Amino acid sequence: MDYFAELEEKGKAAKAAARKLATWPTDKKNQALHAMADALEAGREAILAANALDVAAGREKGLSAALIDRLTLNDNRLAAMAEGLRQTAGLPDPIGEGLGSTLRPNGLQIAKIRVPLGVVGIIYEARPNVTVDAAGLCLKSGNAVILRGGSEAIRSNRAIVQVITQAAADAGIPEGAIQLIETTDRQAVNAMLKLNAYLDVIIPRGGAGLIKTVVENSTVPVIETGTGVCHTFVDASADLAMAADIAFNAKVSRPGVCNAMETLLVHRAIAAKFLPPMLARFHAAGVELRGCPETQRFHPAVKPATEADWEAEYLDLILAVKVADSLDEALEHIARYGTRHSEAIVTTDYNNARRFQAEVDAAAVYVNASTRFTDGFEFGYGAEIGISTQKLHARGPMGLPELTTIKYVISGNGQIR
Amino acid sequence: MDYFAELEEKGKAAKAAARKLATWPTDKKNQALHAMADALEAGREAILAANALDVAAGREKGLSAALIDRLTLNDNRLAAMAEGLRQTAGLPDPIGEGLGSTLRPNGLQIAKIRVPLGVVGIIYEARPNVTVDAAGLCLKSGNAVILRGGSEAIRSNRAIVQVITQAAADAGIPEGAIQLIETTDRQAVNAMLKLNAYLDVIIPRGGAGLIKTVVENSTVPVIETGTGVCHTFVDASADLAMAADIAFNAKVSRPGVCNAMETLLVHRAIAAKFLPPMLARFHAAGVELRGCPETQRFHPAVKPATEADWEAEYLDLILAVKVADSLDEALEHIARYGTRHSEAIVTTDYNNARRFQAEVDAAAVYVNASTRFTDGFEFGYGAEIGISTQKLHARGPMGLPELTTIKYVISGNGQIR
Repeated sequence: MDYFAELEEKGKAAKAAARKLATWPTDKKNQALHAMADALEAGREAILAANALDVAAGREKGLSAALIDRLTLNDNRLAAMAEGLRQTAGLPDPIGEGLGSTLRPNGLQIAKIRVPLGVVGIIYEARPNVTVDAAGLCLKSGNAVILRGGSEAIRSNRAIVQVITQAAADAGIPEGAIQLIETTDRQAVNAMLKLNAYLDVIIPRGGAGLIKTVVENSTVPVIETGTGVCHTFVDASADLAMAADIAFNAKVSRPGVCNAMETLLVHRAIAAKFLPPMLARFHAAGVELRGCPETQRFHPAVKPATEADWEAEYLDLILAVKVADSLDEALEHIARYGTRHSEAIVTTDYNNARRFQAEVDAAAVYVNASTRFTDGFEFGYGAEIGISTQKLHARGPMGLPELTTIKYVISGNGQIR
Repeated sequence: MDYFAELEEKGKAAKAAARKLATWPTDKKNQALHAMADALEAGREAILAANALDVAAGREKGLSAALIDRLTLNDNRLAAMAEGLRQTAGLPDPIGEGLGSTLRPNGLQIAKIRVPLGVVGIIYEARPNVTVDAAGLCLKSGNAVILRGGSEAIRSNRAIVQVITQAAADAGIPEGAIQLIETTDRQAVNAMLKLNAYLDVIIPRGGAGLIKTVVENSTVPVIETGTGVCHTFVDASADLAMAADIAFNAKVSRPGVCNAMETLLVHRAIAAKFLPPMLARFHAAGVELRGCPETQRFHPAVKPATEADWEAEYLDLILAVKVADSLDEALEHIARYGTRHSEAIVTTDYNNARRFQAEVDAAAVYVNASTRFTDGFEFGYGAEIGISTQKLHARGPMGLPELTTIKYVISGNGQIR
């Protein structure tokens, strides 16, 4: 199949749909979301059969157990996807929200109104649930979406998109609102990254390699997501029991996600008291430890950390540990190695808490809590399209409002300049 | 000079300065802005002498009269630049503004705070006043700035930057807060576009060619500015005297700017009444007219318009004119040829006004007013760094808040997940 022709055609259809969706009534969008949820459940046999083929092909190809797990669908996961659509239907519609209005001295009334972005491109990897989540969130926010999932999940994604687009069409949603790139040719991604005529934004969701490719090659504006080299700094004044629980949670509760801690920084003044039991607890939980020379003194399992460890996003049960002489040294370390995702301090010192919150440049800066809370649901957004690690447009967890832009609607009675 | 080494060095200095500027007190930023304004006036001789060399070199090189005009400084223009800095000092500081705070059920307090972007890159052309405007707005919003002006203005820009950075340094502003790329090698722009390690955003200001180069080649996030193919649609129900004044103002008051009208759309029902005097008025004002066959019937000076005319951003006393059968046809034309900058309808019909405002996808959508009002000062922002024609991050006139991002500051007492 000619992927360029496919992209051109889908881009045109998406743009036409986006014009209609921009003023689509909320209740009709919600009806469609419920219909899509019902259709997902009604279509479970076809979807699970397609998914079984993907999983079999994946095993044959030698995909890792973790990838196979992400790829695999079952009744529970399908039900969760359907439930996600119903929850999205229940969220407030961001479109049409007034963001302030001014009456200028010349009588012009200038109102700032929230409107959809237009056409959103999502490029992702093996998880078929992203297909449903992204389709639902884009529809609710009045955007058309073009989905490009990983080739490992192509059969699952085709089956899912067929089911949900049919349901959306039956609910009156314009054709072209939700589309999947059918070709699995890798060149299609490169072509999509240049589709400025039709795409208003591209959001990559996946590993560091995918995100790098998108950022480096896209001429369409990108919202960068994901990479998190997150730190927890245990200050000299910390409640050590609290610090231990926060550090343990930040590393161990779900090591494969971007808000997990990768490096633990410990103030020298309490290192000898805090680190021996902390390192033993990590070791007992199967965490591989890599530390500075000081840290190595406190537990025999600690291997020497190299420069690469301070830069690493392990996404695994591995932790880098460093003893810092001061808050300043911790701030320097975070400024140098952090990816501006989530950073935490554990302290009882008011001034140090205040300095950390003011001086650390990151999407989420915590005092006395686990970095694991950086998440759209935990923030109370009811949804999440990803976590932005860039500063433009959106930063941190992105909910429905982050899938919108604004326009100025200006009412006059003959004003000229 | 090795431009790559220069960029690396300036990027590092800017990043270090940005860390300090992020928490710089408002009163100190304002003092520095006033000192810079005073220094500009005190340094007039050196600046005007450098500018005279640029102007002479430009004339020798055969620059157009318009370009020479943009390049030329004099006492009035220097005074206006200084006044701009003083006005910026008078604007509210956007940094530290709270954008909402929630207390989560688990006791976490999540506050959304406005913070600087970090390091802003500005790439512009011949106008030396951009050097001062951009430096002032970036400083006020707590950002470090790296300026890359056109080679025609390099002597003027060097003289200006020397004067204002000295004044800023004397006022305690960290070194590296305001820097100019010294080399005029064009490759330096390409290198700047890949400076992701140090730049948080690049804002191009200038002609379509510059903007295209930046958008197509930058891996740093870009805020696209400028291109405006703006329309005015005169509806069947319009007050024709009001429509004539609005259309005339939109085209003639300043044809070289992006918010000027490029195409006039006229409803067929009033074309025979509206167009003959309107076209005569444009013709008398020296406007070259290019129209659809229908339009050509109403004035002998109207030349045939081609497809290229509907796409053209003339930035000149040239106007494309088209008779439309209906509001729908006008909306279709705008959707197809508009650049989503500024669009206007003149009408007395409530439903048509409402449909136009809802359905037109543009940064600024006007009813019964000239498109020329799309401007940071006219909107009451007191400043303007440019007009964004993209949908991500900022749309329409960009003031100080558009030079900021947010961070989440989260306060807990031991929360884990």
